[in-house]
Amino acid sequence: MCFCFLTCAQAQVLYDFTAEPGNNELTVREGETITITNQSIGGGWIEAQNSRGEVGLVPEDYIEASNGNDPWLAWNADPSGGSNNNWASNPEGTQTAKSTADPWGSTSHGHPQAYQGPGAEDDEWDDEWDDMKSTGGYVESESGDGGAMQRGGAHATSMKISLNKFPGFSKSGPELYLLCKQLAKSKDKLPIYMGEVGPVWSYPETQLDCVVADPKKGSKMYGLKSYIEYQITTTNRPVNHRYKHFDWLYERLLDKFGSAIPIPSLPDKQVTGRFEEEFIKMRMERLQGWVTRMCRHPVISSSEVFQLFLTYKDEKDWKMGKRKAEKDETVGVMIFSTVEPEAPDLDPSEVEQKCEQFSRFTKAMDDGVKEILTVGNEHWKRCTGPLPKEYQRIGKAVQNLSSVFSSSGYQGESTLTDAMTATGKTYEEIAQMFAEQPKKDLHFLMETNNEYKGLLGCFPDTIGVHKAAIDKVKEADKLVATSKITPQDKLTMAKRVSTMSYALQAEMNHFHSNRIYDYNRVMQLYLEEQVKFYETIAAKLRQAHSQFTTM
Amino acid sequence: MCFCFLTCAQAQVLYDFTAEPGNNELTVREGETITITNQSIGGGWIEAQNSRGEVGLVPEDYIEASNGNDPWLAWNADPSGGSNNNWASNPEGTQTAKSTADPWGSTSHGHPQAYQGPGAEDDEWDDEWDDMKSTGGYVESESGDGGAMQRGGAHATSMKISLNKFPGFSKSGPELYLLCKQLAKSKDKLPIYMGEVGPVWSYPETQLDCVVADPKKGSKMYGLKSYIEYQITTTNRPVNHRYKHFDWLYERLLDKFGSAIPIPSLPDKQVTGRFEEEFIKMRMERLQGWVTRMCRHPVISSSEVFQLFLTYKDEKDWKMGKRKAEKDETVGVMIFSTVEPEAPDLDPSEVEQKCEQFSRFTKAMDDGVKEILTVGNEHWKRCTGPLPKEYQRIGKAVQNLSSVFSSSGYQGESTLTDAMTATGKTYEEIAQMFAEQPKKDLHFLMETNNEYKGLLGCFPDTIGVHKAAIDKVKEADKLVATSKITPQDKLTMAKRVSTMSYALQAEMNHFHSNRIYDYNRVMQLYLEEQVKFYETIAAKLRQAHSQFTTM
Repeated sequence: MCFCFLTCAQAQVLYDFTAEPGNNELTVREGETITITNQSIGGGWIEAQNSRGEVGLVPEDYIEASNGNDPWLAWNADPSGGSNNNWASNPEGTQTAKSTADPWGSTSHGHPQAYQGPGAEDDEWDDEWDDMKSTGGYVESESGDGGAMQRGGAHATSMKISLNKFPGFSKSGPELYLLCKQLAKSKDKLPIYMGEVGPVWSYPETQLDCVVADPKKGSKMYGLKSYIEYQITTTNRPVNHRYKHFDWLYERLLDKFGSAIPIPSLPDKQVTGRFEEEFIKMRMERLQGWVTRMCRHPVISSSEVFQLFLTYKDEKDWKMGKRKAEKDETVGVMIFSTVEPEAPDLDPSEVEQKCEQFSRFTKAMDDGVKEILTVGNEHWKRCTGPLPKEYQRIGKAVQNLSSVFSSSGYQGESTLTDAMTATGKTYEEIAQMFAEQPKKDLHFLMETNNEYKGLLGCFPDTIGVHKAAIDKVKEADKLVATSKITPQDKLTMAKRVSTMSYALQAEMNHFHSNRIYDYNRVMQLYLEEQVKFYETIAAKLRQAHSQFTTM
Repeated sequence: MCFCFLTCAQAQVLYDFTAEPGNNELTVREGETITITNQSIGGGWIEAQNSRGEVGLVPEDYIEASNGNDPWLAWNADPSGGSNNNWASNPEGTQTAKSTADPWGSTSHGHPQAYQGPGAEDDEWDDEWDDMKSTGGYVESESGDGGAMQRGGAHATSMKISLNKFPGFSKSGPELYLLCKQLAKSKDKLPIYMGEVGPVWSYPETQLDCVVADPKKGSKMYGLKSYIEYQITTTNRPVNHRYKHFDWLYERLLDKFGSAIPIPSLPDKQVTGRFEEEFIKMRMERLQGWVTRMCRHPVISSSEVFQLFLTYKDEKDWKMGKRKAEKDETVGVMIFSTVEPEAPDLDPSEVEQKCEQFSRFTKAMDDGVKEILTVGNEHWKRCTGPLPKEYQRIGKAVQNLSSVFSSSGYQGESTLTDAMTATGKTYEEIAQMFAEQPKKDLHFLMETNNEYKGLLGCFPDTIGVHKAAIDKVKEADKLVATSKITPQDKLTMAKRVSTMSYALQAEMNHFHSNRIYDYNRVMQLYLEEQVKFYETIAAKLRQAHSQFTTM
């Protein structure tokens, strides 16, 4: 998703691009700075002006916003304020718009290690572009009129399509479900039971497990276009998927479940360094995290579309499944029509109270998580920057003094100089250890919190749907009085808002139990590695200490 | 010693001073900024100009140079470059001038902890001032025409007196000794033996041990003037000395032995915060270091003046001993007349080679020591500044998240939140540990290196005396040819320069053996504490880790 709010921003050209004559294109060269004059062109193009004042279209993946170069920004509070604003007031529920609020997110997200190396090859944009051409253009692309269109070529315009198609997020809001005359009979029911902790989804006996591994470079067009394919293995035979397939799945899940279940975004699309080893590893790790989270969700993991993704038999099966999923009409707020709580209806005021509570909690946790990310980010920078340099310098200084001592011509001080040299080298090793440690512990703490930041960022929209429903129910008396709805409609609305509340409670309980599991695990891992780290340092220093003469 | 090379520097007024009419004095107020217009007034006065353009005399201890506020400068290479210049070319041997080359040293030296708190009381300057008044003025002060005059009131002018009195450092140079017709029969002979490592001083069977302790505030003039007295204990009964007595001793040792033995400077005189507890502790520690080093030197520890300092019986004994020491004529280069090597004479070229070797070594070690101080200084700042802040923030962030978790309303997560809170608190403890650690280990490494920096800073002068002697001997043939000296004189000179070389070698060997001992000890201490530090952190983190649920 690359819907950018910035206009007239400066951007760096990443790769040479030669304009095709007569196409309103602009020839640009790698390293050139251009000014973006229109982000909303769509089709993977932006309009830009070069330093000579010439204006024309440039493929958006060939450029990078000039201010998005600090990869660490992604781990801090969203610098554009977009994500924060979400929490303020967003009653209409604009989840799709929200998840793209970080302009140039594709270059500013990700892990620092993933940003090294040039990575001049270009993959998916070109590739999608090529797909489009080969299938005769945009609207007729393989993915039909929804989902996959929003990826690749059609970033900006996809928003409108999405808003039109996605009833839950349209202006009509949750009343589509609240006032729906006849609920469609879906065969996929989502029961909610009363567990020890309150309402819970129906959990499968065994949790789906899934491994994303073995990234392989594939190519088309005689090697001109290349991409990375990941192998995804559940209990079934492995399937292969490209990033764009994950993205298609994400869009489907968001369409179908987004009103009831926060669907975390995928790791961001990345233009530069796409085939760089570290980047591929990082993306794989994050895709693994994303799929694992989906697997752990009882509603998502058992959904047809998710099962299709993991277990399609062959290309034909996959294509058929895709088309079917794209035609699914139980999407947006209509997902609540499949929710069946086995519990008495709640009073609307009780619903409101629950909703407020979850809103407060997720907001507070969002703040807490961002604080950890900010602090962790600082710590990472210190551990990989000034600290190793300092220990390195300490090591060098001790070794230098030792070598001066060796030149004294005084006999019998080799024990001292050997011990000092060893001490100096030990501090150099400690420098190295400091530099490498964050990858071993802080990395996972950061990744977990980053994942939760993403997840928490989806809650305002999910909660927003509930708030809009509550507001609608509050209007019910007036609507009855003005004969806009019948008294029976009012009762139906109250019942349905109760159902929505049970869904939210089940989702919150799911969130809490996952949160407890995740934080317990990551804190343990972090501390384990930290203990090892400090113990290793102590052991190394003890070894150096033992080389001095005991007096 | 406060002989300042800076002129027209800005200075801060530390205390109110009201001019006496008709005395060319300038009234200044605490906090006022003044411009120093003449440093060389002497008598403890400087000439300064206030912001209204008025010029007059101000007591130099009432002001502080504006740029000398970073106490850490003292542990770096001398910012004025004065000390470095010493190494370049200084054949005349101006040790006294050298040891004061750090302008405003009295405020820029010392330990950072010693610089907290206002410490508005003034001690020694006032006190000396008062002494002078009570004894009828400057020249007639208790200390006669040398030594103690250089302290307190008479900083600038003392240099001239010293240069005049101190033959080794006068323009006549080492020839005073080399060409002396008849060597005075001193009863204090300084034999040099051939030890395993080469020429060595004669070491006593047991090394003198000495404890500086129990600093007590004394006062005179009905409490108007106060000072600190330290108790110095050897095997004898304890004696009490004020800083100014240490300074008198230093001047005597410098006069008497400075040409042969580098006499390290005392910890600098300090104007601000003089009675602040930390400062007194630090000064005591450094005086202890200085006295210990003197005790360890076989020549100094057995000298009459040093013994007087440690073991005087009563006030009368002390005063008599002082007068005697001040009348000692075996000072400057004449100290070599008491050196008696039991080894064959060296060839002058061999002498030159030794001298060059020591010069190179001490220069290289000076660089090495300064590097350690610079790096250690950086490390200290990081350990007491950003690092604890960062661990503090990590601790707070984890505790904040824990308290958000506690507010979830979800049951059964108290194990997690308790463990997270404990982890957060552990990181706060680690923050505290980081902040306090330098005092436990780096402090001693820094102090040792600082001491060696001071000691090494004396070598250029000591070596300079030898170089001047070698140059004189090289001229011998010409002097014989022009009948300025006899052929016999030439032989005497060669013999005496050989004696000087043995003294230098004995001193170098003494230096080396002390250096090996000191560095072995301080490195061990440092590493021991570092090991403890990292082990304690690991143990604390292991404890925090154990509170999480094992999965």
